[in-house]
Amino acid sequence: MKKTDIIIIGQGPAGLSAAIYTARAGLKTMVLGCDPKVAGDYVIDNYFGFPESVTGKELIQLGCQHAQKFGAELRCEKVLGIHQDQAKGFVVKTDRSEVQARAIILATGVSRVRPGIGNISEFEGKGVSYCVSCDGFFYKKKKVIVLGEGVFAANQALELKNYTARISICTQGKKDNISKEYHDLLEKNQIPVLTEKITTLKGGAFLEKAIFSDGREEDVDGLFLAMGEASSLDFAYSLGVTTRGVFIEADHDQRTNVPGVFAAGDCVGRFLQISVAVGEGAIAGHSAITYLKKTNN
Amino acid sequence: MKKTDIIIIGQGPAGLSAAIYTARAGLKTMVLGCDPKVAGDYVIDNYFGFPESVTGKELIQLGCQHAQKFGAELRCEKVLGIHQDQAKGFVVKTDRSEVQARAIILATGVSRVRPGIGNISEFEGKGVSYCVSCDGFFYKKKKVIVLGEGVFAANQALELKNYTARISICTQGKKDNISKEYHDLLEKNQIPVLTEKITTLKGGAFLEKAIFSDGREEDVDGLFLAMGEASSLDFAYSLGVTTRGVFIEADHDQRTNVPGVFAAGDCVGRFLQISVAVGEGAIAGHSAITYLKKTNN
Repeated sequence: MKKTDIIIIGQGPAGLSAAIYTARAGLKTMVLGCDPKVAGDYVIDNYFGFPESVTGKELIQLGCQHAQKFGAELRCEKVLGIHQDQAKGFVVKTDRSEVQARAIILATGVSRVRPGIGNISEFEGKGVSYCVSCDGFFYKKKKVIVLGEGVFAANQALELKNYTARISICTQGKKDNISKEYHDLLEKNQIPVLTEKITTLKGGAFLEKAIFSDGREEDVDGLFLAMGEASSLDFAYSLGVTTRGVFIEADHDQRTNVPGVFAAGDCVGRFLQISVAVGEGAIAGHSAITYLKKTNN
Repeated sequence: MKKTDIIIIGQGPAGLSAAIYTARAGLKTMVLGCDPKVAGDYVIDNYFGFPESVTGKELIQLGCQHAQKFGAELRCEKVLGIHQDQAKGFVVKTDRSEVQARAIILATGVSRVRPGIGNISEFEGKGVSYCVSCDGFFYKKKKVIVLGEGVFAANQALELKNYTARISICTQGKKDNISKEYHDLLEKNQIPVLTEKITTLKGGAFLEKAIFSDGREEDVDGLFLAMGEASSLDFAYSLGVTTRGVFIEADHDQRTNVPGVFAAGDCVGRFLQISVAVGEGAIAGHSAITYLKKTNN
C-alpha cells in the first residue's frame, strides 16, 4: 500500500492552502478529491489580492499549481472512507486505491445531501445512521438499506457485509451512479440496487418499515445515509471526531479531538468564505507539521 | 469631527481584507495607518492564489486597490490613540485628524519595541506602564518620563498633562522623530525631549530612579512606554480590551471583550501568516457588519 506523510481530503481553498504549507515544509503530501464546489465560473469578489475579477475555477487552478510547485501530489479520486489502524496509522480508501498516512486534514466543505424523507429525524439513532463503521455493529443479521446513488453508498453497503447479509441500496430516485467495478462487487455480494424513492419511515421505539413512493412497504431495521459523495462529516463519524450539527469541531489550531486529524474550511462551519478557508488551511497545515515532527520516530 | 461607520487600524492583509468586506457591505469604512511591515520587496511564497512570486509590496497594493474599489477610504495617518465616548462612540486621534466611528477593527500587527532597559520587567505595574489613559491617574503631580521618539510618545506626554506638570520625554538614544507641530505643543506645555538612553531602573516597592548611560540618576515615579508607533496593544490597553502577553484576546468571531471592537491578524497572535491574517480580517469584517446592523438605530 502506498504510504505518505499526510493526506488532505478536499481540493478546495482550505485543502490546497494546507497542502502549500505541508509540501513546502517537506512533508509528502497527497491531496484527494476533485472538482470542489467553488471551482465554478462565477466571480470571486472578496478574496484579498484579486481586485479584478477572478473566477472560482481560476483560483482553484492557481491553488493547484501552487501546491504542486512544492511537490504536493494531487489526485482526482473519490474518497470512500478513512480508518485508523494502530499499526498503519490512517488508511484512506478511494474509488481507485488505498493509501496510508500519518496525519489527515479534512477539508471537503460542507454538503450534506438531504434524502427527502419527511420524518427521518424522528428515527435518528433509532435505526437511521450516518456511519457504518460507527453503528454497523448494532445491525448484526438485521435488514438494512443504504441510501445513496454513488460509489460511497456502494462502499458503505459492502462494509455492512461484515455484520449482515440482508442489505440493499436505494438511490432515492436518483440515477444509479455506481461504477462498473463496484456494481460487480455488489452483485457478487448479492446487494441489489433499487432506484425507487423512500418517502416516509414507520416504526415505534425503533425503525420498522420504509414506505416507497408507490405505496409499497418494506421491512427495515437500519437505514444508512450515504448520498452523494462522502464528506468530511462522514469521515469524522468513522474516525470518532467530535461534530456539532453538520460541522466538525476544531480548536484554534484546527485540531480535532483525534490526534493527527485536522479540519479546515467550510466543514468547520465558521464564516463560509474563501479567505477564511485559506487561513484555516494554513493553520491546519502548520498544526499537522508540528504534530508530525513530534510523532516522528 | 468627521464621522464614519467603521475604522480599521492597520493597512496590512488583515485590515485590508476586513475593509473589503465592510466596504462591500455598504459600510463607510476608513483604513488608517500606512506602510505595513509586510509591504517589503521580499517574496511571499505561501499565500494561496499566487503560485508565481509576488512581493509583499505588490500584495498590499492589490489589497489597497481591492478595498478602494468597494469605496473604503485609505488614509496614511499615524493613529495616536483611541477613546470610547458614550455620546460619540469611538474617537480615533491621528497625527492629522480626529474621526468618530461606531466600530473599530484593530489590525496593526505586533511590534512591541523593546526599550533596552535590562530590569524593566521588575517594575511593571510598580511605576512602569504601557498606557496613559489606564494609569495616568495614579501619577497625579508625580514625576513621569515617557519613553519614545515619535508623535505617539509626544501625544502620550501631552495626555499626561491632565494629571501632572512634571513630564519629560526620553527617546532612548533614538533620533527625535516628533513632528514640528507636536514639538510646538510640547514646548508650550514645558515638556522637554531628552535624546539620552536610560539603562537601568532603581527602586524598592516602587520605581524611584532612572539611571542614564552616562551614569546620571534622575528621580522618576512613572515611566510610560510609547516607543515607535502605537500598536493594537496600546489601543487595546486604552479601550479596556483583554490582552494575553503582547497579543489581543479575540474569540472565534474576532470579537474582543469590548462590544464594537474587533481584532485580526498578527496582533491576535495565532499563526503569523498572511493567509491567516486575511481569513481573520474577513471574519472581523463580517462580525463588525453584524454588530453595526444590530446597533443601528
